[in-house]
Amino acid sequence: MQRRSILLSSGVAAATLMAAHTSAQAQPAIRWRMTSSFPKTLDTLFGTSEFVCRRVSEMTDEKFQIQLFAPGELVAGNAVLDAVGKGVVDAGHTASNYYTGKDPSFAFDSVVPFGMNSRQQSAWMIMGDGKKLMRNLFKEQNIYNVPCGNIGTQMGGWFRKEIKTVADLKGLKIRLPGLGGDVMAKLGALPQQIPGSDIYPALERGTIDAVEWIGPYDDEKLGFNQVAKYYYTPSWWEGGGQCSMYVNLDKWNELPKEYRAVFEAACAEGQAYMQAMYDTLNPPALRRLIAKGTQVRPFSNEIMTSAYAAAESIYEEISAKNPRFKEIYDNWKAFRNSQIQWLGVAERRFDNMMATVIR
Amino acid sequence: MQRRSILLSSGVAAATLMAAHTSAQAQPAIRWRMTSSFPKTLDTLFGTSEFVCRRVSEMTDEKFQIQLFAPGELVAGNAVLDAVGKGVVDAGHTASNYYTGKDPSFAFDSVVPFGMNSRQQSAWMIMGDGKKLMRNLFKEQNIYNVPCGNIGTQMGGWFRKEIKTVADLKGLKIRLPGLGGDVMAKLGALPQQIPGSDIYPALERGTIDAVEWIGPYDDEKLGFNQVAKYYYTPSWWEGGGQCSMYVNLDKWNELPKEYRAVFEAACAEGQAYMQAMYDTLNPPALRRLIAKGTQVRPFSNEIMTSAYAAAESIYEEISAKNPRFKEIYDNWKAFRNSQIQWLGVAERRFDNMMATVIR
Repeated sequence: MQRRSILLSSGVAAATLMAAHTSAQAQPAIRWRMTSSFPKTLDTLFGTSEFVCRRVSEMTDEKFQIQLFAPGELVAGNAVLDAVGKGVVDAGHTASNYYTGKDPSFAFDSVVPFGMNSRQQSAWMIMGDGKKLMRNLFKEQNIYNVPCGNIGTQMGGWFRKEIKTVADLKGLKIRLPGLGGDVMAKLGALPQQIPGSDIYPALERGTIDAVEWIGPYDDEKLGFNQVAKYYYTPSWWEGGGQCSMYVNLDKWNELPKEYRAVFEAACAEGQAYMQAMYDTLNPPALRRLIAKGTQVRPFSNEIMTSAYAAAESIYEEISAKNPRFKEIYDNWKAFRNSQIQWLGVAERRFDNMMATVIR
Repeated sequence: MQRRSILLSSGVAAATLMAAHTSAQAQPAIRWRMTSSFPKTLDTLFGTSEFVCRRVSEMTDEKFQIQLFAPGELVAGNAVLDAVGKGVVDAGHTASNYYTGKDPSFAFDSVVPFGMNSRQQSAWMIMGDGKKLMRNLFKEQNIYNVPCGNIGTQMGGWFRKEIKTVADLKGLKIRLPGLGGDVMAKLGALPQQIPGSDIYPALERGTIDAVEWIGPYDDEKLGFNQVAKYYYTPSWWEGGGQCSMYVNLDKWNELPKEYRAVFEAACAEGQAYMQAMYDTLNPPALRRLIAKGTQVRPFSNEIMTSAYAAAESIYEEISAKNPRFKEIYDNWKAFRNSQIQWLGVAERRFDNMMATVIR
């Protein structure tokens, strides 16, 4: 104290401290609690929320700190929407298609069968109307939503028997939640809702015939290859899987504007980080699975075109009774179709050409 | 001053100011100058550097300010590498394939013919060895490099006549710099180095027969469709075009660590922003060009497979005399090949399937 008191006897030092005081006001210490929908064992998904919390701290010289909790520690993995909206936690990392039971419109914030791939979804969110439409939707839940991660096109899951035609799907018990399950049901399958921890024994005992999870790297950890031989591709119900960061809207509004910018930038970094992790970890994981006997099988064109028709009819049915879904769907569909036409001109031609020259 | 003096009579207030002083030290005012390689008229490319500067300011409550200059204002568009390394400017937004004349190894930081698409390049940079290898390369230039933007697969450019076979390339004068030009030369074409502003009149007068630039949105602004009818696809020499932010290494090392994190996060946001801009702006631009009479033509398989073989032989030739190129190339090639195998399992199947169901 003494040294400071001496300094304060000079007007210059006092002015310096006054400037310092202003700066201190602009840099308050903030502590948040964040919950994740994803178990710690999924280092891809949980790891992305860890990455975001670390980067927020680094960008603010540790002044904005977010404590991260695994599912079940504070909030169940599939209850993040309500928990964040009500302020049980300040933020949550989750996937919005977990909440289609509340309103199927939430799927557009994550993934819709026969929807957009990772890059197309990002374009809709960043430059299209996706962000505005999703913010309107989440505002009613008292949530500010920020895209935070994408998985890319997922695998179509593990099947105990080969599936060649739509007829083979009849009565098939497949663990597949959300809109993808609705499409499967239209094709005659019996979609099952089974919590993550119960999936393996159900598949092993034959209580279910098939399970969709994520992709090679994550699936390998759960050992599905030990109880199902056929690994189908692609997941036409998850051409990209966007994850989201939810923030309690009151907490968001209270946050100094520079911390809001920091949080959004950290989520953008997290988005790139998650996609890069999947893209880097999946190829060797698939090679390991194949080496252990997994048989990769493409879905037949008959199954995919039938599923597409079923999906479109479901979207029309929902649109007829849910005006908000219709508003978003119409915007999303026009953007998707434009993206797919353009993709065929350069990017998809390049990718297909590379597949012919690299073996 | 008076009110403050009174407050300081209490020990509590003095302690508060002491804390404030610490905070102020951690948040110095920083002013940088950044140059761009890209003219302001390219709102996609120049716009990304504007976006990054704005976000850095927002994240630091305007304490870290970067003043942006267009090419020619301080530094020529193709001289950013030297200018940043020597400290003429603090930072620069550019594309590393502009500097392959100095060392072809720089191409791996941007784009290599028959290389990776946008997402694959990001995976190599973020999770593969790309960042480490590139940082080693740039350190010798006294530069810290950060990826900042990707264009995605570009178009193959504007041709006054149809090109169906490798024989049609013989003697063709095409504006195509860098390694892509080297590959074209192996196939018998005569690649030309022409500054941006001179390209249109050269193509109009027939001094050159073809020009590659970027893609529909940017190309439309230069009006190439008015002087060449055929728009070829894809650019097998630019399957993705990564842009980079260069920072003078001394300036980087002086930067407080929280500002370093802010700068890198802003570049990651800029990366997503640029890709989303191209993905959103290109589809309607291509439709406009086609409506005005542009004919889109795919390169023939003969041209693409011959170009691939030529590219591989060039990489082997360079590797034989440039050990650093070889070190990076070997790492990059193994990563690329693994990516392309995996792409064919799920993502490319999804994209191809979507192209058959959406019309």
